[in-house]
Amino acid sequence: MTFPQIDTPAVLVDLDIAEANIDRFQAHCNQHGLKLRPHIKTHKLPMIAKRQLDAGAIGITCQKISEAEAMITEGGIDDVLITFNILGDTKLARLRALAERVRLTVVADNTATVDGLSGAFADSPNALTVLVECDTGAARCGVATPEAARDLAQYISQQPGLAFGGLMTYPPVGAEAEVQRWLVEAKSLIEAAGLEVPTISNGGSPGMWQAQEVGIATEYRIGTYVFNDRSLQVRGTCSWDDCALSVLVTVISVPSEGRAVIDAGSKVLTSDLLGLGGHGHVLGRPDIHIAGLSEEHGVLTADAINLQVGDRLRIIPNHVCVVTNMLDEVQLIRGREHLGPCPVAARGQVW
Amino acid sequence: MTFPQIDTPAVLVDLDIAEANIDRFQAHCNQHGLKLRPHIKTHKLPMIAKRQLDAGAIGITCQKISEAEAMITEGGIDDVLITFNILGDTKLARLRALAERVRLTVVADNTATVDGLSGAFADSPNALTVLVECDTGAARCGVATPEAARDLAQYISQQPGLAFGGLMTYPPVGAEAEVQRWLVEAKSLIEAAGLEVPTISNGGSPGMWQAQEVGIATEYRIGTYVFNDRSLQVRGTCSWDDCALSVLVTVISVPSEGRAVIDAGSKVLTSDLLGLGGHGHVLGRPDIHIAGLSEEHGVLTADAINLQVGDRLRIIPNHVCVVTNMLDEVQLIRGREHLGPCPVAARGQVW
Repeated sequence: MTFPQIDTPAVLVDLDIAEANIDRFQAHCNQHGLKLRPHIKTHKLPMIAKRQLDAGAIGITCQKISEAEAMITEGGIDDVLITFNILGDTKLARLRALAERVRLTVVADNTATVDGLSGAFADSPNALTVLVECDTGAARCGVATPEAARDLAQYISQQPGLAFGGLMTYPPVGAEAEVQRWLVEAKSLIEAAGLEVPTISNGGSPGMWQAQEVGIATEYRIGTYVFNDRSLQVRGTCSWDDCALSVLVTVISVPSEGRAVIDAGSKVLTSDLLGLGGHGHVLGRPDIHIAGLSEEHGVLTADAINLQVGDRLRIIPNHVCVVTNMLDEVQLIRGREHLGPCPVAARGQVW
Repeated sequence: MTFPQIDTPAVLVDLDIAEANIDRFQAHCNQHGLKLRPHIKTHKLPMIAKRQLDAGAIGITCQKISEAEAMITEGGIDDVLITFNILGDTKLARLRALAERVRLTVVADNTATVDGLSGAFADSPNALTVLVECDTGAARCGVATPEAARDLAQYISQQPGLAFGGLMTYPPVGAEAEVQRWLVEAKSLIEAAGLEVPTISNGGSPGMWQAQEVGIATEYRIGTYVFNDRSLQVRGTCSWDDCALSVLVTVISVPSEGRAVIDAGSKVLTSDLLGLGGHGHVLGRPDIHIAGLSEEHGVLTADAINLQVGDRLRIIPNHVCVVTNMLDEVQLIRGREHLGPCPVAARGQVW
């Protein structure tokens, strides 16, 4: 039986694989002169963040203030980028407190966000660095044009308590040339307006091995690469052997020759599909389709399911970043060795 | 501004609406002579479970031992059904401990599960009541035929430490006549084998107002009804005014006339679609489509979005049972009155 001492369902994190993933992409960034700023939303574990810094990362990326607070509490992390428009008195007060503990950078794509940041930092001894978030094609947040990026950069540079720090984008997949063109134009316009553009932050795991093609970028943000997942394997970004996180499950019912049910549903694997069919990959059983998830049940189908009640399986989830977020602890392993549980420090909080 | 003192995103639970939902379906069950056994997976809050019992529920349903433990810790709950094949030494030891604190019933659909239960309860002073889980068409767990139900009932009745208690099914939607036929036949076969069938447990929110059509059932399990959600509104099971849980969000970016971004993504709203298009319903703005979710961003689209950065919205999620599971606390309200935060006692644990 696989890890008989671990009750299921359990999220297993193989540190050997995670460390190899960290080192491999750090080497890629070093080779191409890109600074690496890993996004900790994927693992939410301070020990992994420290390992990323030890390997050469310049700091971390967070999506929420609570993630940053959880990471720096365990020490050693002194450079944080939060890639979110931060609004509202409660969050701004926490942001101000955070800025007293680390070198902090945030983003904005609108003047209302900039005004809020300026109000919170106007009397700060150190200006808060703000990057302009740019929509280079992904159609989420971001100013829509290089001209709008220039205008917002100028606006930031004029507000008390703030310093314009450069540009940030969450790029569309497979559009490196367009992203490069967009950012080159924005940088040129901003420099023509008399401002420097020290940082250009690009990112995203699907395009990680093409990161250098956006040559104007100074740093790369990436989260999923530390664990990898089915979405990246299907894209060819990694192999199954590079997947550091798996979900250990038990078969609890085999109602027919073609169907079995496991003790993991959407409350562990999540319903994220990322465009894929099925809800994960059963290691060693590519013939099995994870056909459906209830909250605590997963339904497996195959021409011949060939499983017994009590069997254990390991599943590579579709999207690893949301799986670590589901449970209060993960189980650390190295190969077949079980190291023990580890609390997921940065989960459960809204912001 | 809606609830300015609550930081967003936040899960709001309106107790006035939840109490009305509890009372309305309890009255429906009373009218039809059905016992009600609410499933607490939806709310995970002991105070709501107690309110359900005060209204007349005979006990609670849980899907995991940790849910039962969290519910009974706050007292007043002494009758628990866990609707899951429970396997493995760790869980069985906890189940045995739980049985010493409450009147406990579990389910099984296979002999391996029954053997495990018997091993754990063989020396118990009180037999553990086991229901046979029946697949009446939903194709998840459950024995496949009434004959198999009879055979497993006999097997249970012969094992030390166990008592056969009846039948349980998680039925397909809109198939009341078929479910009734299946269960009538199984009951008849089991009685012909000399066993009594004291409990027949049916359930499911989509079919809640047709519960009485499976007249052979003695009790009904139901979870979502306490809060309701978009999936039930779309089915016509409830109205928006009956939705007790909403997610309070802030608009953090308005990049174009047709698009806005909110501070709630899949880590609050979850990716559960339940067959619906879009990721929830914006109260008061039926023209808005929640087109996509990243982990912490939600993208709203409309012909004219007409929103400003900083605006607050309330969203009815597609599937409410998974949303309460995402955060360590919810915010209790009554109409426009904010009562305060409430910890989600039964979340974060695998089992």
